[in-house]
This record gives sequence, C-alpha cells and structure tokens, in this order.
Amino acid sequence: MFREPIEKMAPYTPGEQPRPGQRLVKLNTNENPYPPSPRVRRAVIKAASAAMRLYPPPRADEFVASAARLYGFPTRMILAGNGSDELLSMLFRAALGPGLTIVCNPNSPCGTLAPPRELEKLARALDGRLLAIDEAYVDFADSNALHLVKRHPNVVVLRSLSKSFSLAGMRLGLCFAQPPVIEALLKVKDSYNLNRAAIAAGARALEDAAWMRRNVERVKRTRALTEVRLRKMGFEVPPSSANFVLARFEGHDMGPVAAALRRRGILVRHFPTSVFRDAMRISIGTPAEMAALFKALEPLVKPYVAARGNGRVRNPV
Amino acid sequence: MFREPIEKMAPYTPGEQPRPGQRLVKLNTNENPYPPSPRVRRAVIKAASAAMRLYPPPRADEFVASAARLYGFPTRMILAGNGSDELLSMLFRAALGPGLTIVCNPNSPCGTLAPPRELEKLARALDGRLLAIDEAYVDFADSNALHLVKRHPNVVVLRSLSKSFSLAGMRLGLCFAQPPVIEALLKVKDSYNLNRAAIAAGARALEDAAWMRRNVERVKRTRALTEVRLRKMGFEVPPSSANFVLARFEGHDMGPVAAALRRRGILVRHFPTSVFRDAMRISIGTPAEMAALFKALEPLVKPYVAARGNGRVRNPV
Repeated sequence: MFREPIEKMAPYTPGEQPRPGQRLVKLNTNENPYPPSPRVRRAVIKAASAAMRLYPPPRADEFVASAARLYGFPTRMILAGNGSDELLSMLFRAALGPGLTIVCNPNSPCGTLAPPRELEKLARALDGRLLAIDEAYVDFADSNALHLVKRHPNVVVLRSLSKSFSLAGMRLGLCFAQPPVIEALLKVKDSYNLNRAAIAAGARALEDAAWMRRNVERVKRTRALTEVRLRKMGFEVPPSSANFVLARFEGHDMGPVAAALRRRGILVRHFPTSVFRDAMRISIGTPAEMAALFKALEPLVKPYVAARGNGRVRNPV
Repeated sequence: MFREPIEKMAPYTPGEQPRPGQRLVKLNTNENPYPPSPRVRRAVIKAASAAMRLYPPPRADEFVASAARLYGFPTRMILAGNGSDELLSMLFRAALGPGLTIVCNPNSPCGTLAPPRELEKLARALDGRLLAIDEAYVDFADSNALHLVKRHPNVVVLRSLSKSFSLAGMRLGLCFAQPPVIEALLKVKDSYNLNRAAIAAGARALEDAAWMRRNVERVKRTRALTEVRLRKMGFEVPPSSANFVLARFEGHDMGPVAAALRRRGILVRHFPTSVFRDAMRISIGTPAEMAALFKALEPLVKPYVAARGNGRVRNPV
C-alpha cells in the first residue's frame, strides 16, 4: 500500500514532552527557558476572535512583512513555514533528493559553528546546486550566513522562532532565498500553511527583537558557566554557539547517566548512536535549573572520573 | 536546481482573501458565516501563555482524544493534521503516486454526494490500494463514510474543522484509518505539525459539537432557500450536500458575472476551466449576505435569461 522505503523507515523520535502537570527540569529539546514577548501573548489573545472562521492569508503576509523589516530582505525573498521543519520538507519535495546539501549551523548536537566564509566556499563548490543552511540556533552564535543569500542564488537560509524567540509551541519558521527558489517552494506549499494565531505571534515576536536578544544574552551567560562547570566535572565540552552543550565522556555510554537523571526528574538528550553514545546534549535552562542538574549529575559521574585511569567503571549508575 | 515538473507547474491559486479592514461579502472559499464555539475562543486565550516556549505534543494528544470520543474511534486510528491539506500531502508522500485514489465527498465544486454504498464498492474494487475519502463538507450532508474505515483496511477518511466547525483560520484536519496506515503516515509527518493554539482550539471545538450542528442547520436552511432562488433566476443548481452551491448557466462564461459581482463587493468563485467556465461556486453565507448577493445578481443575469432562446447574450455585463 505504501512505498517500500516508507514501510522500512523508522520514524524520528522527538525528545520526551512532559504531560500537563508533570514537573520536570526539561533540558532535552533546546527550548528557551524564558517566555516569549508579552506582545506575542497579546497578539494570540487578539487572534482568538470570530475571524478564526476565515482562512488565513496564504503567505502569512504580516509575519513575512515583519521578517522583511527585521532582516532587511524584500518579501519576495522570504517564505514562512509551519516551523522550519515544514520548510525543509518543502525543499525536499521541490528539489531532487541527491541535489540538496544541508548544513545545520550551529550544528546539533555539537553546538559548534562553521564560519560564514567556509559556507561561502561550499556554496561556490556546489556550483549551482542548492545549499540549505539551517540556522535554527544562530541567534546564540556570533556570526551568521544570511548575507550569503543575496550573493548566491543557490543558498537558502532557514530560521526558526522556536529557540531564540521562545516560540517552539507556535511552529514558526522562515526561509530566505532568491525569488526563483521561493517560487519553486510556493508550488509545493500547502495553500494555508500557518494558522492565524501563528501568523500574529510571529509578526509580533519579530517586532520585539530586543526581548529576544535579552533572553539570548541570559542563555549565553548561563551557557558559559555550564561549560566551565561540566569540564570541571570531567566532561569534554566543545565550545557551543547554540542554546545547548554537548557533554562527552569519551568511550563511556552516557545512556545510564541520562536515565538516572530522568529518574531524578531531569531530562537531557541521549542519542544511542555509535558517534554520540558517549555524550549527552544538555539544553541551557535557567540558572536554577542548571543548579538542579549539577547537583544530580555530580555524584553520577564520579565513577566515570575514577575509571579514567584504567578504563573500567566501578559501580556505574 | 529543482525537479523539472516543479519548474513547469503552476501553483494552486487560493480564493481571494480580503485585506484587513476590507468590507466584502465573502462567498468564495466556503467558510462558515458563523463564529466558532466560545469554548474555542477561551481555549486559544488560555494557550497564549508562557507555555508557547515549549514544543507542542507531537501527536496533538488532546485534539486526537477529543476526536476519539466524538467519533468513537481508538486514538491509534486517528492522526491530526495542520489542515486536511497537510494530511493529503502526507498521503502523497507515503504512497506511490498512481496507487492513490482520492474522492472528495460531497465533491467540490458541484456539492453533490456519492452514497456510502458506492464508495464501499469502490473500496472493494481497488483491491487493497488506498481509497482516500475527503469529507471536508460531510457535516452538511445526510450521510458519511466514516464507518468504512473500520471495515476496510485500504480506506482513509479525511475530515476538516474548517467548514462545519468554523475554524478555517486554525488549520485543523483529521485522518481516520487503520493503524498500519496511520503508522506509515507518522513516518513522513513533521515532528510537531500542530501548534499549541491549534491543538487547544481543535480539542474544544470537537467537545462542542452541538454548536457546530446548530450552525450547520442554519447553513442548510439558507442553502435550501438559495437553491430555490437561483433556479428561479434561471440557473441550473445541482442539489448540494455541502455549504456551497454551484450555479450554472449552460454554455455561457460566468467569468464576467463573477467579476461584476466583485466590483459590487461580492466575492464568489469562478473556475476558468472548460468544464466549469459556465458556473459559479457560491458559498452559503448569512441570510443577509445572500440577500445582498441576490440583489446584485438579479440584474446581471437578465441578459443571459433573455439570450436563452437564441443563444446570444445582448449587453452582457
């Protein structure tokens, strides 16, 4: 009934989402620990009107206009998506499978950043084939590649309001590209892909970029302290340009540590793959949430530190 | 850069959406003229909280649970979509192109209904290949095919909250199918496809089905009067089971009539294709909106009525 690859595929498993009322320290899906701008809240309340009976503007005009003002792009170079996930999915549908190169920058789960000049080299080397740069985390970094879109017709930059703008729950993504790319994507786009509440939320969030930047600065301060603290505990931590850090204990499966944290009410992300098995991805929360993490984590990593000499962990968690 | 069919494709053009503040009688995109349940409004206001910073439940649990209760299906046979558009797009991605038969019932733009026993025959004849029944308008009809899903593993029924539940602006669709189909669709679904406001709105809307039914009854009464009135004017109108009617003047392009209505502030839908050129699709509005339509339409159709004898229209609009 379905295509063979579909029958064989395993679905992507998103990080655990607590049930309503469940009290957990949630450091597993890179959400912003601070709330979105109060303007967003007011806009969504206003959207809860009789106008919900009417279809939304197909191109999310208000949101796109806000993005055009904030980023200095003409609206014909911007496409709004139901999260950047949907924009990626449109890119896949519009482009040939093997002709699409995607770079997540800063990348996940490492959090490291490739400098724009490296990406520009790559864009040139691809010689007309698409280069999609997923900048979901870029507001937490010191540089970005948005300017490459204007210079290179094959460069697409994706942004998300999930992390820096604290709007993971509203599914808001933006795609920046030259008009021919935007036009191709419009052909595979669902007619009305953003609902009225999302459009209003996105428009107002981008108008209050100062609110976002203040929260980003708080996250970056906590990130710096977190990196220091985790390294002191014995973890290797690559310098992060995102709102999470990767804490690695080379050669030791961190699955049991993540599970032990879960039992203590703290969620972090562990990917049971050969490359990342010995690491945990930890989102940056509030200082209080990080203190709770450190308190729970410190006794759990002691056996791994002790084992460093001989490679064997006694009494692991 | 893109697949050849994409480069050649023309995008689907959605019906005109008035700009904010523009006062028009909007009978062109089959929206419900009555507002959604006040419970929906309260739910969206409640969703406008700090929790917008958190990812939504990936399977829209609250909305799906509401659907399970209202329609008497287990939750594993239900998938929520960002509008039924997204669900259709998932079906296309999961299934092989030519192995998918789609029936819109009641259909658009005619509004006529195929009886469930005909669809059941078709489901059998397809011999295991998928039959997707798009029931976007079915709440305005006297029967539906939802029960076929439990009997036939190849039947998929799609529902939308856009029309009968007055929620076109919130993008809420439901897919009913047997678990293997739902599991295949989950593999191509974006991780978080409905935002928090939509999930809350959908859950509460389905809990207030009485509100929906009251509005549906009002629309059906107006529809009956509209059909009579249009036929009296000289139009052929197939009996509608939806929230719109198709008004046809055989052999005469209705494009100019639709354009003349537009100049008078009334939007109806005209499809400039060979089959539907001589018709207009008119959504059922409030009695006052229909009165405005009739008043504007009556003088416009007179030349066509006069031309019926000799086939030529003198002084068309």
